[in-house]
Amino acid sequence: MSVSPFDHPYLSGLLGDEEMGIYFSADADIRAMLSFEAALGKAEARHGVIPEGAAARIGEICSSFKPDIAVLKAGTASDGVVVPSLVRQLRDAVGGDEARFVHFGATSQDVIDTSLMIRLKAVCFLLSARLSVLGEMLQGLERQFGKHRLMAHTRMQAAIPMSVSDRLRAWSDPLGRYRERLTNESFLLQFGGAAGTLDQLGDKAAAVRAALAQELDLTDARQWQSQRDRIADFGGLLSLITGSLGKIGQDIALMAQGGTEIALYGGGRSSAMAHKQNPVAAETLVALARFNAVQISALHQSMVHEQERSGAAWTLEWMVLPQMATACGAALRLAQELIKSIIRIGNAD
Amino acid sequence: MSVSPFDHPYLSGLLGDEEMGIYFSADADIRAMLSFEAALGKAEARHGVIPEGAAARIGEICSSFKPDIAVLKAGTASDGVVVPSLVRQLRDAVGGDEARFVHFGATSQDVIDTSLMIRLKAVCFLLSARLSVLGEMLQGLERQFGKHRLMAHTRMQAAIPMSVSDRLRAWSDPLGRYRERLTNESFLLQFGGAAGTLDQLGDKAAAVRAALAQELDLTDARQWQSQRDRIADFGGLLSLITGSLGKIGQDIALMAQGGTEIALYGGGRSSAMAHKQNPVAAETLVALARFNAVQISALHQSMVHEQERSGAAWTLEWMVLPQMATACGAALRLAQELIKSIIRIGNAD
Amino acid sequence: MSVSPFDHPYLSGLLGDEEMGIYFSADADIRAMLSFEAALGKAEARHGVIPEGAAARIGEICSSFKPDIAVLKAGTASDGVVVPSLVRQLRDAVGGDEARFVHFGATSQDVIDTSLMIRLKAVCFLLSARLSVLGEMLQGLERQFGKHRLMAHTRMQAAIPMSVSDRLRAWSDPLGRYRERLTNESFLLQFGGAAGTLDQLGDKAAAVRAALAQELDLTDARQWQSQRDRIADFGGLLSLITGSLGKIGQDIALMAQGGTEIALYGGGRSSAMAHKQNPVAAETLVALARFNAVQISALHQSMVHEQERSGAAWTLEWMVLPQMATACGAALRLAQELIKSIIRIGNAD
Amino acid sequence: MSVSPFDHPYLSGLLGDEEMGIYFSADADIRAMLSFEAALGKAEARHGVIPEGAAARIGEICSSFKPDIAVLKAGTASDGVVVPSLVRQLRDAVGGDEARFVHFGATSQDVIDTSLMIRLKAVCFLLSARLSVLGEMLQGLERQFGKHRLMAHTRMQAAIPMSVSDRLRAWSDPLGRYRERLTNESFLLQFGGAAGTLDQLGDKAAAVRAALAQELDLTDARQWQSQRDRIADFGGLLSLITGSLGKIGQDIALMAQGGTEIALYGGGRSSAMAHKQNPVAAETLVALARFNAVQISALHQSMVHEQERSGAAWTLEWMVLPQMATACGAALRLAQELIKSIIRIGNAD
Repeated sequence: MSVSPFDHPYLSGLLGDEEMGIYFSADADIRAMLSFEAALGKAEARHGVIPEGAAARIGEICSSFKPDIAVLKAGTASDGVVVPSLVRQLRDAVGGDEARFVHFGATSQDVIDTSLMIRLKAVCFLLSARLSVLGEMLQGLERQFGKHRLMAHTRMQAAIPMSVSDRLRAWSDPLGRYRERLTNESFLLQFGGAAGTLDQLGDKAAAVRAALAQELDLTDARQWQSQRDRIADFGGLLSLITGSLGKIGQDIALMAQGGTEIALYGGGRSSAMAHKQNPVAAETLVALARFNAVQISALHQSMVHEQERSGAAWTLEWMVLPQMATACGAALRLAQELIKSIIRIGNAD
Repeated sequence: MSVSPFDHPYLSGLLGDEEMGIYFSADADIRAMLSFEAALGKAEARHGVIPEGAAARIGEICSSFKPDIAVLKAGTASDGVVVPSLVRQLRDAVGGDEARFVHFGATSQDVIDTSLMIRLKAVCFLLSARLSVLGEMLQGLERQFGKHRLMAHTRMQAAIPMSVSDRLRAWSDPLGRYRERLTNESFLLQFGGAAGTLDQLGDKAAAVRAALAQELDLTDARQWQSQRDRIADFGGLLSLITGSLGKIGQDIALMAQGGTEIALYGGGRSSAMAHKQNPVAAETLVALARFNAVQISALHQSMVHEQERSGAAWTLEWMVLPQMATACGAALRLAQELIKSIIRIGNAD
Repeated sequence: MSVSPFDHPYLSGLLGDEEMGIYFSADADIRAMLSFEAALGKAEARHGVIPEGAAARIGEICSSFKPDIAVLKAGTASDGVVVPSLVRQLRDAVGGDEARFVHFGATSQDVIDTSLMIRLKAVCFLLSARLSVLGEMLQGLERQFGKHRLMAHTRMQAAIPMSVSDRLRAWSDPLGRYRERLTNESFLLQFGGAAGTLDQLGDKAAAVRAALAQELDLTDARQWQSQRDRIADFGGLLSLITGSLGKIGQDIALMAQGGTEIALYGGGRSSAMAHKQNPVAAETLVALARFNAVQISALHQSMVHEQERSGAAWTLEWMVLPQMATACGAALRLAQELIKSIIRIGNAD
Repeated sequence: MSVSPFDHPYLSGLLGDEEMGIYFSADADIRAMLSFEAALGKAEARHGVIPEGAAARIGEICSSFKPDIAVLKAGTASDGVVVPSLVRQLRDAVGGDEARFVHFGATSQDVIDTSLMIRLKAVCFLLSARLSVLGEMLQGLERQFGKHRLMAHTRMQAAIPMSVSDRLRAWSDPLGRYRERLTNESFLLQFGGAAGTLDQLGDKAAAVRAALAQELDLTDARQWQSQRDRIADFGGLLSLITGSLGKIGQDIALMAQGGTEIALYGGGRSSAMAHKQNPVAAETLVALARFNAVQISALHQSMVHEQERSGAAWTLEWMVLPQMATACGAALRLAQELIKSIIRIGNAD
């Protein structure tokens, strides 16, 4: 099946992002969830909540465990989350007396939200690295064509002449801000137990949580399971990045339309007109920007997360956030291609 | 990769819809696009635009042709649409003198939009059939529990007693309207050539178009390539259906919360609390409703489809419409499951 | 205060629509609500539910009653709807024994939703008339410039030459469809009483409802208070119209950018560049299209209207629908101005 | 006219915010724009760009100038922005030789975006103060009822018992984060001239800009006229705040439905059922949250701000941002009312 463009056998060539998609694969999610369960065992053993032997056994199994995906699928269908089924399979694999120490004191949301944080952290590195490369490419353009003349356009009309530098600065300034924000993001452990109170851990709760965060290289923080502001805000950042790249795409599509302001290498073919060179990457940047500008609304709707855990609001996040990250990744990939394809921008005199 | 929940190895158990997903698979799209090319050849031969032999050869090849997907993917990446690459592969397969008659007078958008129409027609049948079954299930509830008492709630507060029938009617009335609308939808051929003018067909244009529509069992109509109102309106219908099912889901989740108004069979398990039976399908209906209520915005943004063909606005549709249809299909599937799981609704006295 | 552009002392010059705004004024709403109360009295008297004298007295008072707006405002603040305060004031004005027959058997939602239907009916006429004028203006362009040449553009690039007619047809075809839809809209009475069951009217319920619908020149129908599909669908139509006008605006802005494809009379001035003539109306059409494409999402979120009446979902409609109608009206006004300002389109050879 | 609920004679009682609305009144905008023009004169005189006398005269006139609103409205209608008309009127008022030094080197966007920054800065103070009061009110609840028992609910079902504190923490934690963000917001001068290059100021550009920023108590920064990330991000913050308050509203509406978990003072009346006490403020918080969750999409669409200044994308911001701020203000007002109305939360044992 291939309902989304990101997972589609051929549309993914245009709209997908293989490197980004890896973080949202079932496999990456399962590995991150198992790393949570392993780290939880370790942290709980360190503080005497579960036996050392159990933690060792759990860690060993988690390091190589391959759950039965068909069973996970059926479990998700009936439970609304994958975790009950994953934990049952994991307990079976651990076996014996130690099985009951698997997932001790935790709940589905701890596993799923923490897995998300582990992967978003990696996503941040990827985005930051790509922004960095793109920034350098724009600096390259600046060195090569910065002094070229370009007609400024306001309200879709020729205004006054300016330099290519002036346009390039409007493209690159926001990218610098995004890199800074990505660098400053912190990724928080989610650990609250059934209702957020870590009720099964008694006075060890804070210590176990701190140890667990350290183990997973995440920031220790009080549970945030019904506080989705950080998720919505991170989605906002993804959409801002995509939006600024959409502006670059729109500008280039408009420059290419006139025919004299920019020269691009390559471009898409038409099935009907052999002479055409379509600025495909430029247009796709606009499509991706508008896509994320729509999706961000879903994450804000999810802020109305009722009570201690909302099945409805939480599920809505799952439907949207991975796509937003992938759209953002694809936009960065395409923006690099597009900038690379610029043969000339502006005019020497 | 599995960025979207609809294509995901285990989330699709909850949120996907295999039957619906088939219509948005690459395979179904390719088959519909090849049926367009075959029918085009036939229609053009009938009106003397291309030789009968060429049409026969094209039809024969199209009936069994399997394009190289990796090549389609690379082609989509560079051309922004799959068609140039598909047509090249198809021409190679047809070979000889007849190759140049493949896709004669048509453009990418004709192929892609018509393929969509062919598949949406089938989608309509599927949705209509499911609405029909759901309607019968609600009638069953009506027969069994219609006279039970239920407390009406307005503004989240107990209001006055009413019958279960009164609540059921608010659930089923809109579904009847949707079935009627689905029955009355017409699915239009898109055929305009490079810029919508069928410039290569001269005075045969209207006749070929009519023959092509008949061949594909679609409605003949003037090209509508930059007029996206029907697409956005169809997406609106998908979202209305999902919205009404979301209302049912929300109502049932609220009834289940109290504990006395409804009795449900089954329900999702919790990884932390063995006693829980979560109304997973009810909550998921709310999530799907809110998802589509977000996505519809994208289709309306795509109405600003500049000039004769907008790469940006059109691509945005591809990213959203298949997901909306699948969310709608999944909601109908879940609504059936949920209604089936009702053991009792309201109280006998 | 002037938070919205539609009500703003000077932004309304660009974005508002005085004629449309009248239907969403407090005054028009109050008059429609009073006409509901008067008609309700009449219908109930006709069927012996309340005394003829009471109905006459209520009708007389309603015909000229001016409620205290400050009291309505305070009432809306505490009750969440204006009706309890309006009914109290109306009862005081009616006075005596007859006061208690005011609003008999009805509830707030009956009054507010029916008032909306009465006004949307008028809105439809206005939109239809404006679409009609715009259609004629486009036919005028067709007669004058239809045979001029224009370069078709696909994917933001020059494609092949076509005629101005070809472009104009893509602009006017959807407008014809919208007029047809507006003509076929039906406007339904909402009348259900406290929980939608007309519990206070006993076996007279259907007859009173039919009489009330006839009195108000609305379609008689079973209560639809928690079924918001027609509202969302009507909002969809408003957004489709605005979207198609946005496409016209975008096309004209792009044509004006090049400088040779279109000549426009007038255009906006710049505070910094005396030589500029900005295609303000064209750009504003795009802004209005994107505005409504965003708002439509709210109406679809409101489909999840829990139980017999949702304060939250219903209130959300009030925040959005009047603005959508006004944005649509403003877009039609601006589209007429813009088309009128076309001096030439395309080129004679 | 009263198309929006925020400006409506009686709906504003529920949904408006008078204190917030002041910052988005025409009057406040005009005063801020005149303060820009006065400060610009002063900064330019200081650096010898215009005569001291002219600056003094401009400053004097600006301090009391009342433009003709009808003329501004007509000007906005034709120019798409108010500034050309405002500047003409201001020049007439300044008169003589000095008139031509009004608005020297600046453009419409400098005036409008800077006016927005001046007012958003005040908005931040207001929001921060209200968040602070709300935080104290929640602390009051904590002191009074924190140890009460409350049934945790996950996925709309009773989970395990917890304390009222646990619930209150989920409400107040995000509010603390928002206050911190509001405190750290910086408000940037926009000053770029016609195309963002300050072309008329030559080598004085940077110095004048710095002086102007200082004069207006804003942060000096390179022009950002086509970089809308900060605007969209600020809108995101407004929507996050509203979203977290919507979560509180939803929780309270759900608690009130059951009848034993919370006791509220007051509540809305029904026009049909004398016994009802509707949790109006709670529901309205949900409506406001969903409203802003929709609107945020518009600000992200506006990120695709083509070339040096987009009429379309910029206008779209004007239509949405003031409403978002007002909705956020109204939500804070209502949240305070709602918390104040809590007589008891949870149960002593």
